[in-house]
Amino acid sequence: MGGAGGARAEGGGVREVLRVPLGEGVDLGGIDPRAIPVGPADKAAGLAATAELGGRLAALQERLYAASTAGDRRRLLLVLQGMDTSGKGGTVKHVIGLFNPSGCRIQAFKAPTPGELGHPFLWRVRKALPQPGEIGIFDRSHYEDVLIARVRELVPRSQLGRRYAQINRFEESLAADGVTIVKVFLHISYEEQRKRLLERLDNPDKHWKFNAGDIEERGAWPAYRTAYELALERCAGEAAPWFIVPADRKWYRNWAISKLLLEHLEAIDPQYPRGDFDVEECRRQLLAT
Amino acid sequence: MGGAGGARAEGGGVREVLRVPLGEGVDLGGIDPRAIPVGPADKAAGLAATAELGGRLAALQERLYAASTAGDRRRLLLVLQGMDTSGKGGTVKHVIGLFNPSGCRIQAFKAPTPGELGHPFLWRVRKALPQPGEIGIFDRSHYEDVLIARVRELVPRSQLGRRYAQINRFEESLAADGVTIVKVFLHISYEEQRKRLLERLDNPDKHWKFNAGDIEERGAWPAYRTAYELALERCAGEAAPWFIVPADRKWYRNWAISKLLLEHLEAIDPQYPRGDFDVEECRRQLLAT
Repeated sequence: MGGAGGARAEGGGVREVLRVPLGEGVDLGGIDPRAIPVGPADKAAGLAATAELGGRLAALQERLYAASTAGDRRRLLLVLQGMDTSGKGGTVKHVIGLFNPSGCRIQAFKAPTPGELGHPFLWRVRKALPQPGEIGIFDRSHYEDVLIARVRELVPRSQLGRRYAQINRFEESLAADGVTIVKVFLHISYEEQRKRLLERLDNPDKHWKFNAGDIEERGAWPAYRTAYELALERCAGEAAPWFIVPADRKWYRNWAISKLLLEHLEAIDPQYPRGDFDVEECRRQLLAT
Repeated sequence: MGGAGGARAEGGGVREVLRVPLGEGVDLGGIDPRAIPVGPADKAAGLAATAELGGRLAALQERLYAASTAGDRRRLLLVLQGMDTSGKGGTVKHVIGLFNPSGCRIQAFKAPTPGELGHPFLWRVRKALPQPGEIGIFDRSHYEDVLIARVRELVPRSQLGRRYAQINRFEESLAADGVTIVKVFLHISYEEQRKRLLERLDNPDKHWKFNAGDIEERGAWPAYRTAYELALERCAGEAAPWFIVPADRKWYRNWAISKLLLEHLEAIDPQYPRGDFDVEECRRQLLAT
C-alpha cells in the first residue's frame, strides 16, 4: 500500500491512493494510522469537505435507486472492517447518515448464532445483501470468518485456507451481478485503541459499549494484525478491492470514506430512467380531475 | 379529531392535539390539510425547530439502543400512511434522516408478491418489525389490507370486517411486548395531490416516481377517504393511536412528525445501562497494555 504511507497526493482519486495493490504483500506496520495521504489537510477543512460531499452522495443515491425501478440491477456494498473501536459504528452514523435512509440496507454481523452456525459461513451474508438500487453496509462481515476464526482457531487451518478462495468467488459473483464492492479496513493504532477504550470507561454513558472481553481481544492485537494482512492480500481482487483508511483521526476517516463512496457512485454513473408514459396525455388527464 | 381543526394550541403536546380521539367518528373533510394546529407558525421557524429536534431525537435513540443491550425490549414503530404523494418517502428522508441509520429498520410495503399472498396478511408485517432498541418505520403497512383491499374489493366485505379486529389484536400484542406504536395519517388535499403529480410530470428526473396508474388511483379519492376514515375510527385503540398530520406543507409535516417521535421517545425515557464490570480494574489492565 504505497499511497497512505507516502507524501500527500493533491487532487488524485482516493480510490487510487488508498487501494491495496494487487499481488503485493501488505505491511500494516508501514502505514501511519494518522496519515493524511490525500484530501483536506486539517479537521476544519475535513468537516467542511465532508458536509459538502453529503449533497452529492444523496443525489447519486437517488439516481441509483431511480435506475433500479427501470430494471438496473446495480448497487453498492460498503464492507467495514477494523479492530474494536476503529470506528465502524461512527462511520455508519456520520457517513451513511448523509444518505437517504430508505435506500440503505445496514447489517451488523455479530458472533454467529447457533442457527447461523448450522449453515455455510456465507449464508447469513447472502441474506443481507443490498437489493438493486440500494446502498448496503456491512458493519463487520464474512471477513470475520477469516479474522477471529483464525485468531481464535475456530476452524482448522486447512478450512481457513479454503475460505479466502470462497470469499473471492463469492465477491466475483456479486460484482458480476452489478454489485460495486467497496471494502474498507479502518486502520487505527494500538495507542488510539487504548485511548478510545479508556474514554468508554471514563464515561458511564458509554459503559454499554464496553465489555471486559475487549481487553482480552486487545491482547491478541498482533495476531489480528497478521490475520488482517492475510485477508487484505488474499482477497484484493479486481472485482472487490480493499482500501486502507487511516482512522486515528475521525474527521479524516469520515471524509475519506465519503469520498471513496462518491468516486464509486460516480463510476457507476446511474441515470434517471425516462418515463414510458405520454406526459402530455397524463397532464391533460390530471388537469381534468 | 378536534385539535387539528381548531385554534392553534401553544405549548401543548403534539400527541394530544393531533391524536384521533377514541370512540368518535372521523371526518377528514373537516380537517384542513394546511392547518398549523400546534407548533411553529411559519416555514422558517418550522425548519429551524425541526433541525433543533434532530440532536434530541438522535440522543434519545442512542439511549433506546443502549438500553436494549441490557435486555430492555422497548422500541418504537412509526407507521406512515397516506394517499399517493402525501409525503411518506419525504418523511423518511427528512425525519428518519435525523436518526443514526444503524438503529433504524425501514420497510416499504408494496403490492404483496405471490409468495406473500400465500400467507395471512400480517405475516410479512411481523417479519419487518423493529427489534428491541430499534426505531422501525413502515412506509405503508398492514393498513393497506383494509384500504386498497376495500377500495379495490380485493377481499369479501366480511373478511375485511374481521381484519380491523385482527389488526387491533396484533397491535395490542406488540404494545404488550414493548413496542410504542405511532401511526401517522399524512393528510393532504385533493388539490395538493394534483399539484405534486403535475410536478412529477414536469420534471423528467421525477418521471420514475410517476406511473399512469396514479391517475386512476386518484379517481378513487372519495373511496379511499372513506376507507381511511373507517381505519382511523376502528383501529384507534389506546395501545396504538392514530395521529392526523396536516401534510400539505412539507415543513410542517416534518416538524410535526419529528415532535411526535420526540414526545413518544421522551415517554419511553430510555436509560443508559450501567456496566457490570469493575471500572477501576479494567482501567488498570488497559493502562498496562
